[in-house]
Amino acid sequence: MLNIQVISVGDELLCGNTANTNLLFIGGRLAAHGYRVAGECCIPDTREAIFHALSESKDADIVILTGGLGPTKDDMTRPTTAEFLHRPLVFHPEIRAGILAYLGERGKKMPPEAAEVQSMVPEGGVPLKNQNGTAPGLLMTDGAKMWALLPGPPRELRPMFENELLPRILEKYAPLWREISLHALGLGESIVEDTVRKALGADLSRFHLAYCIKEDNVEIRVGALRGTQEDADLEKAVATIRQGFGTAALPEDCNSAIEYLAKLLREKGWTLATAESCTGGGIATRCTDLPGSSDWFLGGFVTYANSWKEQLLGVRKETLESHGAVSAETVSEMLDGVLQKTNADLAVAVSGIAGPGGGTPEKPVGTVFIGTAWRDGKNIQEFHIHGLRDTVRARTISYATAMLINSVLKQ
Amino acid sequence: MLNIQVISVGDELLCGNTANTNLLFIGGRLAAHGYRVAGECCIPDTREAIFHALSESKDADIVILTGGLGPTKDDMTRPTTAEFLHRPLVFHPEIRAGILAYLGERGKKMPPEAAEVQSMVPEGGVPLKNQNGTAPGLLMTDGAKMWALLPGPPRELRPMFENELLPRILEKYAPLWREISLHALGLGESIVEDTVRKALGADLSRFHLAYCIKEDNVEIRVGALRGTQEDADLEKAVATIRQGFGTAALPEDCNSAIEYLAKLLREKGWTLATAESCTGGGIATRCTDLPGSSDWFLGGFVTYANSWKEQLLGVRKETLESHGAVSAETVSEMLDGVLQKTNADLAVAVSGIAGPGGGTPEKPVGTVFIGTAWRDGKNIQEFHIHGLRDTVRARTISYATAMLINSVLKQ
Repeated sequence: MLNIQVISVGDELLCGNTANTNLLFIGGRLAAHGYRVAGECCIPDTREAIFHALSESKDADIVILTGGLGPTKDDMTRPTTAEFLHRPLVFHPEIRAGILAYLGERGKKMPPEAAEVQSMVPEGGVPLKNQNGTAPGLLMTDGAKMWALLPGPPRELRPMFENELLPRILEKYAPLWREISLHALGLGESIVEDTVRKALGADLSRFHLAYCIKEDNVEIRVGALRGTQEDADLEKAVATIRQGFGTAALPEDCNSAIEYLAKLLREKGWTLATAESCTGGGIATRCTDLPGSSDWFLGGFVTYANSWKEQLLGVRKETLESHGAVSAETVSEMLDGVLQKTNADLAVAVSGIAGPGGGTPEKPVGTVFIGTAWRDGKNIQEFHIHGLRDTVRARTISYATAMLINSVLKQ
Repeated sequence: MLNIQVISVGDELLCGNTANTNLLFIGGRLAAHGYRVAGECCIPDTREAIFHALSESKDADIVILTGGLGPTKDDMTRPTTAEFLHRPLVFHPEIRAGILAYLGERGKKMPPEAAEVQSMVPEGGVPLKNQNGTAPGLLMTDGAKMWALLPGPPRELRPMFENELLPRILEKYAPLWREISLHALGLGESIVEDTVRKALGADLSRFHLAYCIKEDNVEIRVGALRGTQEDADLEKAVATIRQGFGTAALPEDCNSAIEYLAKLLREKGWTLATAESCTGGGIATRCTDLPGSSDWFLGGFVTYANSWKEQLLGVRKETLESHGAVSAETVSEMLDGVLQKTNADLAVAVSGIAGPGGGTPEKPVGTVFIGTAWRDGKNIQEFHIHGLRDTVRARTISYATAMLINSVLKQ
């Protein structure tokens, strides 16, 4: 079985400064191509720690080191790997020329000795092109073994991994697994697991299943060992799961609920507007996270103060006084206000108690009303969300997106 | 030197499903109390991997294992640690009683054998109370050595680490370091480093410095070995750095720029309203992330479509046509609109090109205009932000927050 080890180099990962998102990225991309990371270690940027970690990984087929490739004396990954592999560092003038060109285009400079350091390659190694920085990655092979050195900053590491390293891994090592992902809309993880269990029935144990909670959906990853009967049945199993979710399964070309909403609105030629209280602009932000959202997103009202709900959306004072700001009645009038005051085809409105304060016995923290409205219809639902302020707000945004999708699908 | 090792157990960490935020948390909390994590490894949830990792950590003083404490057969951390330490698992009826009480309060159930598994403690071990779940943590000591087993879910791990484990570590091991943090407002990391360098001068190399890029500020952590002259001079050094930043240093009781803005607005009794184009509600969301923001945040307009800028904020058609939506003139009229149409004391408006599309030679992607206005004044600035859509939007929010702080400070 192919043994892939990751060595993450950097003090900042150990002292709470930086989350190791590179492991997350590398692990996810390898898994998507049928490889599994067998283990990872996270070490300080010292010769001793790097040498020890390399020694510990001596049985690995692929060792991926991240970080410590910078131009200063603190950056020990390059010289220590060269020492470990008994390969002297060789100066590559074409790398230095590339670094100087990269800096020149951006009107930046670097001390000559720094450019020199970053142009050194362990003998026989191959530089990996860096689209977004000066330090190239480095790849050394020895028979069936491979050592890859990647820079720490994610914006440098990610394209390098994708365009330079992954193709070489795919060429050299047969992937063991095959995996297909699908995404389920707006459901809790346990409901998703249950739906998969029911859909697959007796076939459940034949496939490797992983569940990953995304911003507005749950990703279900279904895997099988290549060349097995499970591999041959993988598409069928995914189709069965997809069927089990019905309209709660996102289409294959959508990786998130908001992308699906955008696709539906584009297809229909509809525009959207928002009116938010407890989410404070979070739904509008989620919409405009997507490039090209100006095709279908017009804008929104953040009516946090009750006086703004009255002045900007025309919610009646009596409604606020008799039913409260967090009520189906207020949300209904917020929706009316948006559709009356703008030319949007579809509107969403939310009002709730995100906490930690503001809860009452009748309406505890987590009580949220979400409504959607279109020119000839309206749908309002009450939710009770458990968790802290962040959770209440995040789930409200996800539920609102799911309700918007359903509203469009119904027309 | 105290050797602390973290062992993160869980397949989900290696296959791209879950970021290892527990290491980030533990590393940060230990650093804040003067300890350093020497290394971490991330392994699958198997007996072999856990046993091997424990063997590899035999020289450590403190070993913290996270994850794999659940009630199913897949959860191997408890039995493997017991095996490694040659301590048989002993059933603790009081733990089971606690689990059943916890579940009862929430109207939930668990299979009896699952509650049994979670009530087993390696001989001589101490259970660590779990506020937010059923599995207690476990603490085993042997002379100067300590093994702590913590549950994987962050909402269970964090309070347990803070309230149950950290006090025991502080009691047993003298912290080696002392650290003081300060936060600098809206400046790039390189400018922050440069400011610290100039402020400390010849004293620079005497202190351990770490820079951490936060959402809207850069955290500077200044550390010294306890009992040294540097330790005695730590407060003085931090004061010197603080002076170097002037008003760009956040007050001691604020951990973020938005908290500082909230504090200033509360002190002044001012209210804030927003008008956003390219950030699409991100500034309003940031404001309302803070509990109690209804004290000072009234609401906002997300005028993504140009027609909305005209209709809702009264931006003139001629202004949009002659100067464009991304211009100082448009932002100025957006500010006027907010202050005219609402009772806010302070307004912020942004318009920019977040990309990837929409750039022109005159106004490339990353061109952003940010303005702030109060009843008798206005300030508009042009920014050119490098990076992808997410970066442009995130920096715009940070710059806007910094400009709002300066606008309040000037009054």
